[in-house]
Amino acid sequence: MIELVPITGLPEVVPGDSLGTLIARALSRLSFTLRSADVLAVAQKIVSKAENRLVRLDTMIPCESAIETARELGNRDPRLIELVLRESRRIVRMGHGVLIVETHHGLICANAGVDLSNVDGGNTASLLPVNPDASAARIASEVRAVTGVDVPVLIADTFGRPWREGLVDVAIGVHGMSPLRDHRRQTDAYGYQLRATVMAEADQLAAAAGLVFRKNGRIPACLIRGFEFQPGSGNASDLLRNPEHDLFR
Amino acid sequence: MIELVPITGLPEVVPGDSLGTLIARALSRLSFTLRSADVLAVAQKIVSKAENRLVRLDTMIPCESAIETARELGNRDPRLIELVLRESRRIVRMGHGVLIVETHHGLICANAGVDLSNVDGGNTASLLPVNPDASAARIASEVRAVTGVDVPVLIADTFGRPWREGLVDVAIGVHGMSPLRDHRRQTDAYGYQLRATVMAEADQLAAAAGLVFRKNGRIPACLIRGFEFQPGSGNASDLLRNPEHDLFR
Repeated sequence: MIELVPITGLPEVVPGDSLGTLIARALSRLSFTLRSADVLAVAQKIVSKAENRLVRLDTMIPCESAIETARELGNRDPRLIELVLRESRRIVRMGHGVLIVETHHGLICANAGVDLSNVDGGNTASLLPVNPDASAARIASEVRAVTGVDVPVLIADTFGRPWREGLVDVAIGVHGMSPLRDHRRQTDAYGYQLRATVMAEADQLAAAAGLVFRKNGRIPACLIRGFEFQPGSGNASDLLRNPEHDLFR
Repeated sequence: MIELVPITGLPEVVPGDSLGTLIARALSRLSFTLRSADVLAVAQKIVSKAENRLVRLDTMIPCESAIETARELGNRDPRLIELVLRESRRIVRMGHGVLIVETHHGLICANAGVDLSNVDGGNTASLLPVNPDASAARIASEVRAVTGVDVPVLIADTFGRPWREGLVDVAIGVHGMSPLRDHRRQTDAYGYQLRATVMAEADQLAAAAGLVFRKNGRIPACLIRGFEFQPGSGNASDLLRNPEHDLFR
């Protein structure tokens, strides 16, 4: 059985907080003893807050391009669009009020992950962490310092996807486990070699954690117990399809 | 806490099997008492087997188009490609040895979900269920007949996705719960109204169940306990983006 355990009791996260330390203390208050077979999933929003990836909108002076883009998208806030464009390498699709971009990390998502909710009522935008893999590694290190236990850490964010309604959580940062599990060398019960069966386990774990997270940020961390992850040194960029192999660029 | 419970001990599924009955009996052998707050996730592969969505490849006579397409894809089996084309409304993308189509259900996936593994060593292909929502409803009905309990049922299949490596499970059939959860009318902790926050909960549940399923089909059903799903009469087509709103058509 796999258990998805909400890590409740975290204080409101502010810039400078040591998330791993806060999480380890919360686990202790829950009388929960961490095991090295556990996986820790943390919502991107509190990572961005702890890392002060916050920008006051009234400091943003939108360029002409941002003003124009904001208008085309249906009178979106040009200061927010300016911020989105700064966080992006390129625009992937634009229309129906939606701006899908490729971030500097290579992630493809709406609005470059820039978000106004859950900060201070619309005046401050939160940006994605600069390096979510490093964020995951740091949290793992902080957790180890308090508990003595090494666990994989995932940073999860909610993304939309083509052709399917609704958002799901995916792993934008990964430390301590292989994000992908390759079943191709295995055979099925009949001895038939499985073909293209590489599972994005880090994304499935993030989606599972998403069931525990509340969208208003009330439970921004989750422990997953009982899943036999594949140890490894891979990171979230392994989950990004090589543009040369991607049919949707 | 959310628990993902593997339903072990299912017999090998054959055409004509009443999956809900088999699952209910397996739960009973596990001394597991079903509750109406539980969600049942079933892997597409055993639904296809029970519904005899099986085709022997040696009965397939590929048309010219299938032969040509198979060659272009790198000498794939034209009989298999013939089957894929028959299960499809249209080809979405083709290249790098991959054939992404829109199935008759409106699902967009590789090979129309046609699969050779896990049946009989490569001679028989399994197709997606004709109506996965109806399959889910039937399984729910059979489970209720044995246990007296109504639970939502999801049929899960593994899909690839643009820009991200690896496969994740999504819900291709849904009964008894709302596949989407709309958070838009809610406000966050600061009173700021959340914008485009519709979560594809059925897909997240499917991904979570995927952590339990084994790719070789050994554990093809999973119970999810402790998740407060939104009751409803929606189905898997609610998860398909309206083509008019889809930027990736």
